[in-house]
Amino acid sequence: MKDVANLAGVGVGTVSRMINGTKVKDETFQKVTQAIQELDFIPDETARGLKRSMTHTVALILPTIWHPFFSEFAYYVEKFLSQHNYKLYLCNSDGQSEKEAEYVKLVDQNRCDGIIAITYTDIEHYISDGLPFVSIDRLFTHDVAYVASDNKKIGQLAYQVLKESSVSHFAYVGSHNRVKNRTMERGESFEAAVLKSSALFSKLDMLEPVVDNKTQIKAFLLENPSIDGIFAINDYEALDVLAVLTELGRKVPEDVQVLGCDGIKMSAEREYVVSTIKQPTEAMAKSAVDMVLALAAGEETVKEQLLDVSYIKYQTTK
Amino acid sequence: MKDVANLAGVGVGTVSRMINGTKVKDETFQKVTQAIQELDFIPDETARGLKRSMTHTVALILPTIWHPFFSEFAYYVEKFLSQHNYKLYLCNSDGQSEKEAEYVKLVDQNRCDGIIAITYTDIEHYISDGLPFVSIDRLFTHDVAYVASDNKKIGQLAYQVLKESSVSHFAYVGSHNRVKNRTMERGESFEAAVLKSSALFSKLDMLEPVVDNKTQIKAFLLENPSIDGIFAINDYEALDVLAVLTELGRKVPEDVQVLGCDGIKMSAEREYVVSTIKQPTEAMAKSAVDMVLALAAGEETVKEQLLDVSYIKYQTTK
Repeated sequence: MKDVANLAGVGVGTVSRMINGTKVKDETFQKVTQAIQELDFIPDETARGLKRSMTHTVALILPTIWHPFFSEFAYYVEKFLSQHNYKLYLCNSDGQSEKEAEYVKLVDQNRCDGIIAITYTDIEHYISDGLPFVSIDRLFTHDVAYVASDNKKIGQLAYQVLKESSVSHFAYVGSHNRVKNRTMERGESFEAAVLKSSALFSKLDMLEPVVDNKTQIKAFLLENPSIDGIFAINDYEALDVLAVLTELGRKVPEDVQVLGCDGIKMSAEREYVVSTIKQPTEAMAKSAVDMVLALAAGEETVKEQLLDVSYIKYQTTK
Repeated sequence: MKDVANLAGVGVGTVSRMINGTKVKDETFQKVTQAIQELDFIPDETARGLKRSMTHTVALILPTIWHPFFSEFAYYVEKFLSQHNYKLYLCNSDGQSEKEAEYVKLVDQNRCDGIIAITYTDIEHYISDGLPFVSIDRLFTHDVAYVASDNKKIGQLAYQVLKESSVSHFAYVGSHNRVKNRTMERGESFEAAVLKSSALFSKLDMLEPVVDNKTQIKAFLLENPSIDGIFAINDYEALDVLAVLTELGRKVPEDVQVLGCDGIKMSAEREYVVSTIKQPTEAMAKSAVDMVLALAAGEETVKEQLLDVSYIKYQTTK
């Protein structure tokens, strides 16, 4: 199998997956088939049997488990995997693509059956053809399966909520990374909705890694004293906005309303931390698990799931 | 090996571990040796080789990953395991001992090399002799390795901190489970220290599962209006105490000081939520990883690690 892979110029895992019936790109299929013919390769039944024996393990790659959004997501991923008698490998990547790649390799080493990943690194060149890989919140190519909240809807709903709470000067506070991910759409669609309504709009969109977040927010709020409704890219950003407003002696929600996004809670039984547009964490986990198990079994599955969001009213909006 | 295990009345895993050099109880050793002699059993070299090949995986059993203390602990456990080229299986037990037992079985099935567990269930009868198992915060027997914060010191330090902040009427607010665990020592040592000083002392110690926590705290504070310093069993309890104090119009820390325990943060870069006695989460994770890997390798290791705690001043103490 190694020889076939070498001759075809692909990984052993790709050959193995192809032999076991997983679909691969036409081009790859031809290269591998040709190599098989040239080498008179007959798949060893024992090896096929071994390769086919599932490990009943899926790896979850996260930036860090020490974050309420990621730990809630991991909680549900483990719960749904467990219902399928699957175990979960947990990987905190801390943004290191080499560490992420190690987990991708586990699939070829037959130590795990698939990967669910929340990643903002340049991991794309590790994702080989036919690898059972589900990306959360980030679109690689349309060949790579992914699950996300409907981020456009998030921005539109944020506008609607603040509009209905009588906000007149809207603001967006967020940050963005050089690697494009779907969360950037939150601000874009919010801005589009506000501008369409001809209401006043200001924005603070910082480049990550952000230094002195609160200092920048403070300067922004002092420059734009009439802002009375702020949509923050996530709940943490909203908490920082709240801290700055308190420092400036502005009352929330009387003077300024603040709306976050994600819907984080420290744990299941605790309360939300701000009014927020909630991502459907549990539904995202369920979709990701269903998709990765289907891909691992070589079954057909939808490659894209955009899930709906909802407004959670807490103490920071009227 | 199965026949030997049956005759000796122990698990196959115990026989396997003994053959591979892991120390077992004298009594077990004799039973297994006798069975081996009776059956003329010669360990199969291939089987020994297979058994010896490590899986480089450790399982972490937690009540739930969706909790800042547990997710911080899991973050560090994965980090230290990763330095040893080990992977982590994550198990949210949700208090189900059957689910925990599944992970214990993985060791016998040679799917993982050891277990680190935070558990309050009746899991003890699943923990067989010589199983590489490290318990966090709970003492099973002195044969089972465990790592904990020095909970006695926690209570003593809490008293010292509040005493030095001029508290005159001390109170303890906490809850306890029917399964004894070390966290109960926090309240006991705090109470002992206050009583020794002859200062005023009141306590609210609820039996879990606690219903209407805030209602009980409110009644307790109304009955004892002179309380001016409260030590809560953990930071969540402290947050509930703070919510009730706000509702009662009492100022923190001016009228009443509140001190929690654990030292939770939503994530690495966020702030503490109350003044607190901090558990050394990172050091606990490092000890647990070192111990479980030593046990898995059949090496000698300390069986008990009590780690030191520290005071973190935040906004709820003077």
